[in-house]
Amino acid sequence: MVILGIDPGLLYCGYGIIKKDGSKVMLLDYGYLKLSSSKNIAQRLSTIHIFFDQLIQKYQVTDVSLETPFLGKNAQNFLKLGYVRGILYLLVHHHQAIIHEFSPREIKRALTGWGGAPKDQVAHVILNLFPRMEKPEREDVTDALAVTLCGLWNNSRTIPSLR
Amino acid sequence: MVILGIDPGLLYCGYGIIKKDGSKVMLLDYGYLKLSSSKNIAQRLSTIHIFFDQLIQKYQVTDVSLETPFLGKNAQNFLKLGYVRGILYLLVHHHQAIIHEFSPREIKRALTGWGGAPKDQVAHVILNLFPRMEKPEREDVTDALAVTLCGLWNNSRTIPSLR
Repeated sequence: MVILGIDPGLLYCGYGIIKKDGSKVMLLDYGYLKLSSSKNIAQRLSTIHIFFDQLIQKYQVTDVSLETPFLGKNAQNFLKLGYVRGILYLLVHHHQAIIHEFSPREIKRALTGWGGAPKDQVAHVILNLFPRMEKPEREDVTDALAVTLCGLWNNSRTIPSLR
Repeated sequence: MVILGIDPGLLYCGYGIIKKDGSKVMLLDYGYLKLSSSKNIAQRLSTIHIFFDQLIQKYQVTDVSLETPFLGKNAQNFLKLGYVRGILYLLVHHHQAIIHEFSPREIKRALTGWGGAPKDQVAHVILNLFPRMEKPEREDVTDALAVTLCGLWNNSRTIPSLR
């Protein structure tokens, strides 16, 4: 089982990839894709499509984990998130992966024990779980790793050791 | 210039295709794609991707025309519309087409002269413009033809005769 967790966006897409092999859990990759704001939406969606298509193939991803979107103050951002998610759904179907979705509260509760935890508290737990990981430059990365772990725990239903 | 106008959705996607060759304007195709509600979103998005990919290739579409989405009462429908639009943007980029977008008011005003016109008034004008066309089964088709015509008029800036 190889889980790709994504924190999608049209400017930054954070991602984390975790492999589970029996009781062994490995952090394979993490980082973010930066999109150029000088490109139009269609160009950026194409970049996202190509990037995650290659990532899924490279790591033979079996599961994709995403946060369920909620409508914030900005309806246009919500719609743009929809564009990116549409692309990700297309890839999930193309690669016959399994999709997992979690609400922001579920993710925070799974990581910190409290659904209302602030983002830096989630990041703190992530860094504790992966002691050899350097603190990522962007919060998108820890957010993506949080949703990746939710996908992992959703399946294993026990908290495996993380090395 | 071959314009594909789409009224997108996860249950029905209406479409119209109009070709402009000098002063000659031809209605090449129109209809709708019905998606099965028993399929999941990823499967339906994949069906939409394949369908419009083939349609764009078949008619050598150069321009794609869409209505700008607005947030109605249902935020989930707005998000789902985002998924479909993400797929369409990807196709537009892949086939190097030009995208045109019009607000609902612009479309109604272009067709009927009044931005607040009801949908059946728009449908009435469409049927007058294409006298040999049978009344479509679904409003999605006349809605798609309305946005197709906006794409046509946006470029030609004169109202060509429609035969």
